[in-house]
Amino acid sequence: MGVLFLLVLVVGCGGKSEQQADSEAINPQHLALFQPLPEVMASKNNPITKEKVRLGRMLYYEERLSKNHDISCNSCHLLDEFGVDGMATSPGHRGEFGVRNSPTVYNAALHIAQFWDGREPDVEAQAKGPVLNPVEMAMPDEDHVLKVLKSIPGYQAPFVAAFPGEADPITYDNMAKAIGAFERQLVTPDRFDKYLKGDADALTMHEKVGLDTFIEIGCITCHMGAGVGGNLFQKMGLIEAYEMEDTGRFEVTGNETEKYFFKVPSLRNVAETGPYMHDGSLEELAEIVPIMARYQLGKTATENQVADMVAFMEAMTGEIPVDYIQVPELPESGPDTPAPDPS
Amino acid sequence: MGVLFLLVLVVGCGGKSEQQADSEAINPQHLALFQPLPEVMASKNNPITKEKVRLGRMLYYEERLSKNHDISCNSCHLLDEFGVDGMATSPGHRGEFGVRNSPTVYNAALHIAQFWDGREPDVEAQAKGPVLNPVEMAMPDEDHVLKVLKSIPGYQAPFVAAFPGEADPITYDNMAKAIGAFERQLVTPDRFDKYLKGDADALTMHEKVGLDTFIEIGCITCHMGAGVGGNLFQKMGLIEAYEMEDTGRFEVTGNETEKYFFKVPSLRNVAETGPYMHDGSLEELAEIVPIMARYQLGKTATENQVADMVAFMEAMTGEIPVDYIQVPELPESGPDTPAPDPS
Repeated sequence: MGVLFLLVLVVGCGGKSEQQADSEAINPQHLALFQPLPEVMASKNNPITKEKVRLGRMLYYEERLSKNHDISCNSCHLLDEFGVDGMATSPGHRGEFGVRNSPTVYNAALHIAQFWDGREPDVEAQAKGPVLNPVEMAMPDEDHVLKVLKSIPGYQAPFVAAFPGEADPITYDNMAKAIGAFERQLVTPDRFDKYLKGDADALTMHEKVGLDTFIEIGCITCHMGAGVGGNLFQKMGLIEAYEMEDTGRFEVTGNETEKYFFKVPSLRNVAETGPYMHDGSLEELAEIVPIMARYQLGKTATENQVADMVAFMEAMTGEIPVDYIQVPELPESGPDTPAPDPS
Repeated sequence: MGVLFLLVLVVGCGGKSEQQADSEAINPQHLALFQPLPEVMASKNNPITKEKVRLGRMLYYEERLSKNHDISCNSCHLLDEFGVDGMATSPGHRGEFGVRNSPTVYNAALHIAQFWDGREPDVEAQAKGPVLNPVEMAMPDEDHVLKVLKSIPGYQAPFVAAFPGEADPITYDNMAKAIGAFERQLVTPDRFDKYLKGDADALTMHEKVGLDTFIEIGCITCHMGAGVGGNLFQKMGLIEAYEMEDTGRFEVTGNETEKYFFKVPSLRNVAETGPYMHDGSLEELAEIVPIMARYQLGKTATENQVADMVAFMEAMTGEIPVDYIQVPELPESGPDTPAPDPS
């Protein structure tokens, strides 16, 4: 008699529609979840002066801080390439490669701790590591570093200016403080900051849908705050075991509770700072996003969801602070400056 | 003409049905997400001996470690009450209250760090805090603690036995090491451990549904591993701002990135260790579970889901290690033992 109509009403799983995102106002939830980048990433322990920053910029580019005078901070963290070298892992002394991806220095001072395993508390402490790491800059010890710095006449005045009142300002700690002070300027505001500061049109509709998807699917559980990450340590392979040898933070603390835990990376400039993962094993955002959804959240991200989230991530490509990163002129070696040592 | 039938097909949001959970095998995902509790929570820095544990047990119950000889570790962390006192915050010297809830000592040595804000790395370092805290045991300084311990003749031999070969074994560090060694025995295996070790029937169907809901809704993102928590720091009010004055870990590190971050508590024995939250402001599991779902995950947990998850949590009530927590006989004061000081 009658015709049977089957009207299948699919109730979505909480995904926001384009319409919902199409509001002129800024979603107050977004302001609770994220904060704009600060102008400078200040530190109580290392007050910033322009003299310290000036010296830090010099030291950042200083290849004589490496055994063979061929590697500086900027060799792996290229400031004109969003603070990375684009390689899975980076070549150090004698071309040897480390085991972890070189993360960007931009906005890094915001993080709870430094290195993928958080083994150093701040950028100042971080700066001391690579100089002495045998597969990075490979200097034999701190004394040798100081010997080099003291042998270069043109470093005396900048150290005195950066650390006034100190009788012997050329110290390993002060080298690290200067580099840290410089790195604390390396902030890259982007369109997401404009949005968070009140310009609702700073993100496109596509990007806003991506932002809502990012929250809805659960990425926000780890990628939050001003850095959109960098706030906490989390297990890689949280929901589904991820095959890897690196046990991350466990190697630092020896605590089983932290096996496979790594610092959650910041997603600021993420579109420009691949390859991804602690080992640089994934090349594309469109590749890593569904992997993170699966292994970290137990979710299947659809192609559209991935495209939306990648669009949002691309909106977090920031402005490089060109005034700060001008390559400085470095002072000439003195008569006692040790020669490069390729051994 | 015909009759219009509206057949509304509600597509569920990924929730597991009772049927799915009704498997005799153990879900391999559960084994990846959680681990059974260890028998002893060992430490490289503090090797455990039975002499050290014996001394630690004495010191754990030692009220003369407080200014007025009226408070011991066991006053706030009652070992026969799952390691808590059941109060929102605990009364200390002169009945003054602290601002944070006293967490259980059971299984605490597993955690990444100690205290709600993680300000101490391990149970040994933790043990040094309350003794000197003016609103807890209120001893004026370490020297006074040592004066008390040295004045009690019956402590000499246990300290010598616990720290053999040391010329002067009664030190503040050794006191903390002994208490820590004792606390490293305080493990409470429960039915969830039996399940994780291969007994699929150790959990009821209701509890298994709760476990799957716990994973599905996202609690697992923070409550994982052997402790079902205690592995990481997370922001309270992650998805929706939670009104509170305590800024948690920010007070320790001064890093804006960690504002409102607290150590994620372990859920072992959670049904017996209320009230909940860093300030003990919530009384019932049925109350806090939907709050956590809302503020931390942006989810609305249904009444049934809450009941299921609470059932799972109740399965994590463990066996108190009665042999370890027998109240020891404490040595008598000597002629020089300082008198109780109620001031």
